[in-house]
Amino acid sequence: MKLLFLVLLSLVAALCHASDPSQLQDFCVADFHSPIVVNGKVCKNPMMAKPEDFFFNGLDKPGNTSNPLGSMVTAVNVQQIPGLNTLGISLARIDFAPKGLNPPHTHPRGTEILVVLEGCLYVGFVTSNPENRLFTKKLYKGDVFVFPQGLIHFQQNVGDGDAVALAALSSQNPGVITIANAVFGAKPPISDDLLAKAFQVDKNVIDELQSAFWMDNNN
Amino acid sequence: MKLLFLVLLSLVAALCHASDPSQLQDFCVADFHSPIVVNGKVCKNPMMAKPEDFFFNGLDKPGNTSNPLGSMVTAVNVQQIPGLNTLGISLARIDFAPKGLNPPHTHPRGTEILVVLEGCLYVGFVTSNPENRLFTKKLYKGDVFVFPQGLIHFQQNVGDGDAVALAALSSQNPGVITIANAVFGAKPPISDDLLAKAFQVDKNVIDELQSAFWMDNNN
Amino acid sequence: MKLLFLVLLSLVAALCHASDPSQLQDFCVADFHSPIVVNGKVCKNPMMAKPEDFFFNGLDKPGNTSNPLGSMVTAVNVQQIPGLNTLGISLARIDFAPKGLNPPHTHPRGTEILVVLEGCLYVGFVTSNPENRLFTKKLYKGDVFVFPQGLIHFQQNVGDGDAVALAALSSQNPGVITIANAVFGAKPPISDDLLAKAFQVDKNVIDELQSAFWMDNNN
Amino acid sequence: MKLLFLVLLSLVAALCHASDPSQLQDFCVADFHSPIVVNGKVCKNPMMAKPEDFFFNGLDKPGNTSNPLGSMVTAVNVQQIPGLNTLGISLARIDFAPKGLNPPHTHPRGTEILVVLEGCLYVGFVTSNPENRLFTKKLYKGDVFVFPQGLIHFQQNVGDGDAVALAALSSQNPGVITIANAVFGAKPPISDDLLAKAFQVDKNVIDELQSAFWMDNNN
Amino acid sequence: MKLLFLVLLSLVAALCHASDPSQLQDFCVADFHSPIVVNGKVCKNPMMAKPEDFFFNGLDKPGNTSNPLGSMVTAVNVQQIPGLNTLGISLARIDFAPKGLNPPHTHPRGTEILVVLEGCLYVGFVTSNPENRLFTKKLYKGDVFVFPQGLIHFQQNVGDGDAVALAALSSQNPGVITIANAVFGAKPPISDDLLAKAFQVDKNVIDELQSAFWMDNNN
Amino acid sequence: MKLLFLVLLSLVAALCHASDPSQLQDFCVADFHSPIVVNGKVCKNPMMAKPEDFFFNGLDKPGNTSNPLGSMVTAVNVQQIPGLNTLGISLARIDFAPKGLNPPHTHPRGTEILVVLEGCLYVGFVTSNPENRLFTKKLYKGDVFVFPQGLIHFQQNVGDGDAVALAALSSQNPGVITIANAVFGAKPPISDDLLAKAFQVDKNVIDELQSAFWMDNNN
Repeated sequence: MKLLFLVLLSLVAALCHASDPSQLQDFCVADFHSPIVVNGKVCKNPMMAKPEDFFFNGLDKPGNTSNPLGSMVTAVNVQQIPGLNTLGISLARIDFAPKGLNPPHTHPRGTEILVVLEGCLYVGFVTSNPENRLFTKKLYKGDVFVFPQGLIHFQQNVGDGDAVALAALSSQNPGVITIANAVFGAKPPISDDLLAKAFQVDKNVIDELQSAFWMDNNN
Repeated sequence: MKLLFLVLLSLVAALCHASDPSQLQDFCVADFHSPIVVNGKVCKNPMMAKPEDFFFNGLDKPGNTSNPLGSMVTAVNVQQIPGLNTLGISLARIDFAPKGLNPPHTHPRGTEILVVLEGCLYVGFVTSNPENRLFTKKLYKGDVFVFPQGLIHFQQNVGDGDAVALAALSSQNPGVITIANAVFGAKPPISDDLLAKAFQVDKNVIDELQSAFWMDNNN
Repeated sequence: MKLLFLVLLSLVAALCHASDPSQLQDFCVADFHSPIVVNGKVCKNPMMAKPEDFFFNGLDKPGNTSNPLGSMVTAVNVQQIPGLNTLGISLARIDFAPKGLNPPHTHPRGTEILVVLEGCLYVGFVTSNPENRLFTKKLYKGDVFVFPQGLIHFQQNVGDGDAVALAALSSQNPGVITIANAVFGAKPPISDDLLAKAFQVDKNVIDELQSAFWMDNNN
Repeated sequence: MKLLFLVLLSLVAALCHASDPSQLQDFCVADFHSPIVVNGKVCKNPMMAKPEDFFFNGLDKPGNTSNPLGSMVTAVNVQQIPGLNTLGISLARIDFAPKGLNPPHTHPRGTEILVVLEGCLYVGFVTSNPENRLFTKKLYKGDVFVFPQGLIHFQQNVGDGDAVALAALSSQNPGVITIANAVFGAKPPISDDLLAKAFQVDKNVIDELQSAFWMDNNN
Repeated sequence: MKLLFLVLLSLVAALCHASDPSQLQDFCVADFHSPIVVNGKVCKNPMMAKPEDFFFNGLDKPGNTSNPLGSMVTAVNVQQIPGLNTLGISLARIDFAPKGLNPPHTHPRGTEILVVLEGCLYVGFVTSNPENRLFTKKLYKGDVFVFPQGLIHFQQNVGDGDAVALAALSSQNPGVITIANAVFGAKPPISDDLLAKAFQVDKNVIDELQSAFWMDNNN
Repeated sequence: MKLLFLVLLSLVAALCHASDPSQLQDFCVADFHSPIVVNGKVCKNPMMAKPEDFFFNGLDKPGNTSNPLGSMVTAVNVQQIPGLNTLGISLARIDFAPKGLNPPHTHPRGTEILVVLEGCLYVGFVTSNPENRLFTKKLYKGDVFVFPQGLIHFQQNVGDGDAVALAALSSQNPGVITIANAVFGAKPPISDDLLAKAFQVDKNVIDELQSAFWMDNNN
């Protein structure tokens, strides 16, 4: 009985934790403990916000590129920095082993601007139908390039050593759709008949594509 | 000299055509004759707007599905109806021969809602990383389905006869990126080395994919 | 006591149902069971989303037009398809008996694009002050017309048989304000003195207008 | 010939007037001399902006209420203050003779907040379908009321003397649709057959309504 | 035990109060009793909305200007009128004693349009880097001026008597950053070393600035 | 006469340069040669877009910090990369000499996210009225911090050597308002009487502040 009472009280307390909402709306720090899901994230009580809510450390640490793609994306978005909620921006560090590739992908909710910190990258994006025009550029240390929102793009290390880039995206949660993973590694899989028709190849080519282990270097 | 004067006057006239801008801003009919390119389209003088600017005819005509995909998209967006400019919506009719496929594609600037007018369609979309979850549904006449903005989606005719669907999109210019065309049919092509690594297959598989004739059923 | 405990537990469970919020934000399916009201709708846990959340069936069924207006609107918006939440688009089917009328109304939160599936419609919209210009068009099967956001518009069946149109709107919850209903059928009524002055007619004309039974063909 | 040259030069000059676009984008003062029409207004060269572009005088002057409605709206929007362009706000002064009425209308592009400066007003708005609920309030000097975007609303002087209110709207060009004018005073008129069916009254009632002189107190 | 049951029931009731969310979304009245914090405010059940939710009284009452600045701002935003939530507009009354000053400040989330009701004001704003151009104007009764979003601006009474202005802002919660208070009155204080370098003066000048009592005339 | 004709023709040509506007709207590359000023920038003909429009080089070059503040901001926004137009993101490199300071400033149109590439920074922001709460953090290499839109913030090098940071901003043209420059270095100056009252110090303190040479390290 007492336990019940305590559980009840703590429940009431939990619900009322933020029950004196401040007028302050300079920011809306994501509250990952809230059971409520909204477009974006529910905020914690602004009076409880602290500098750490706007902070992340470790972006100087190289990502592990020991994988078939030879690349790794370390994202710093609203999942890592709750204070980014509602603020429309995020970062990512991209590490590349020699020949490492960040394969064709889109960000459904953001444009990307990338700066090369080390090494040499070959980058590109493809415009939408009907042109499907490929824009490419070889980038060296200190070079900057832009990938417009929603367009398919990629980056590959074409230098001799490792490469590192820093990317900023115009959303606190831009999303990533790696084309190969979404098309050939969907769960459950898209039927091979359908994909064979879509890509105008034999079904066994599709089967081969679908049997690859679809590592996700970017989520 | 007189000719020059007339040319000059007509130029001045052309430039001043809209020089008494009306207060009316209930709409902004796209002016496809303007030399000025802005985000969206420049408007014609609102005083010159007429009902035909908001009109299109012929959406009852089947598209020609005699092509390898067995499908055809007839778009009705700001290019077809200049009055749609700035209004954030458009339509498309999609015709399918038996087994016809509207192959995996994204709309970088819009959500799609589709209703089946005739036939039976198998439709689906795939969520972004890391889940890449496939949502599918078999649709019959009168059924409606939603494809959220930016996600890869497809529709295939799985009935015995032709199929027809009507789709609405949440932009007057939603854009279309057909995955196969943008990845394997880009102009100039993306290097087969890069794609072989991205899709983790042999380069000759990529070469086969790139050698297909990339029909564009949707632009 | 046990009952109480179960009620409490189920309450805790209900609240915690979505307590492990996924990173996935490709969509935000409306959760109509949530006690929380926000601008738009609270989302259900994205991990619980299923194809049916993006689905509606029955838009091939004619609406019942046996009413004084001879028309019926069947809406397919976020109320019918919870997956439309936050996605900015919806549909409606409009059925018309011969001479049936979808009377003058506005959508406060959306532009409408309409295609005639069967029959012949006379449609129009009126621009804002000071012009109040009427734009009209007679539409046949396959014709498309646009009604810009917030403007008063109407559609009437002017063919011999029934007519059917499909409309798309640029909001998942565009709203409808039927002018006659809102002005003469408000609850409680607007005073007849005020309306007589507004419409510059005798009060008994207003009384006659207010005594009509204001059927709502569109909500 | 010399004249021609001067005309030409002045044309070139006019076109090149703003040809060294500044980086400054703190504002975008509307350029009413531009032949280009865009969504909103083209800006003048920001280097040429001056305090007068952000200024209007005379809002202390009463509007002329000697008209059948007994009210007058004096708008201060982007047409009167070019510096308001792109800034999303405007003002209006509303004068009322005794019993004067600002008749039912909507603002398709803005919410209104109103404060009573002098006198006593009876105000109200009606919600959308299906409720069509009337919200009303009697306001005295210093009282404030809100009319949500797109909803039909009105204000009437119910005090003994004149009344004055100041209203702010959430758009630099909110638009006004006076219901009576748009429905019964459209140019050309909406057919009386159609309106008789819409309002469920005899055609002669509509003819009476259409024959009124539709003064526009608010444009 | 009974008490517990009642508490539990009332908790369930409180949570379920709005558990049958209406389709009505014409407005979203802020619910200040909700424990949930979102961007903006959670809404109360729209069925429970009443005219008072859109109402505020007392804006005819002068603010108390007996303070070192000789001015007082009386804000009417979403905190005072819950019905303003999501609607993008608010008001403020500003009172000035002779020589009273509304000191340099910014509104991070809104443009301001101001009308002088009584007296004579000297007003101005400063553009962003690199120009930092000062725009000023002397305003008399009935004059209107605009302060673009985010720019530093001020108003001072330069007439002989009191002055009163009414301001509208393009947000229901525009925020105020009084420069002196935020820079020299932050809690905890910004280090005087840092500020001495920033303002290129001796530290004792900063100490003098920081020791002032930073009255907040505007929150 | 012939010259005139050529001038005329080239003018017509210039105006018609982009007269066959493409449907492609994946991007809107800023056209800095256009005489037309709009909100944002007019676009060049998308058919003429090239990879260089999305490119900038030299962000690996240190800025010159030999100035009283000991810091320098190198901005990479729409002025440097025309392809950023309409895309809502930009970058900046910030160099700091030992003790170098990026003084208190705001970005009226963007949130900033910053990562330390080298050295050690003490950073902070101040919330709006009435709290004016100071949030600070000492950042080391690889640390990331967020400065919410519109709030006053600063960064100072508190390490032994030089420091370098990379910042991303959520606008292609976020703007910068350096508080000291805008308040004490406005052109023409704000009156010292007014500022003395605003900052509650003697006029000679203001005169001292205004006599500093206001270097602009950030425009």
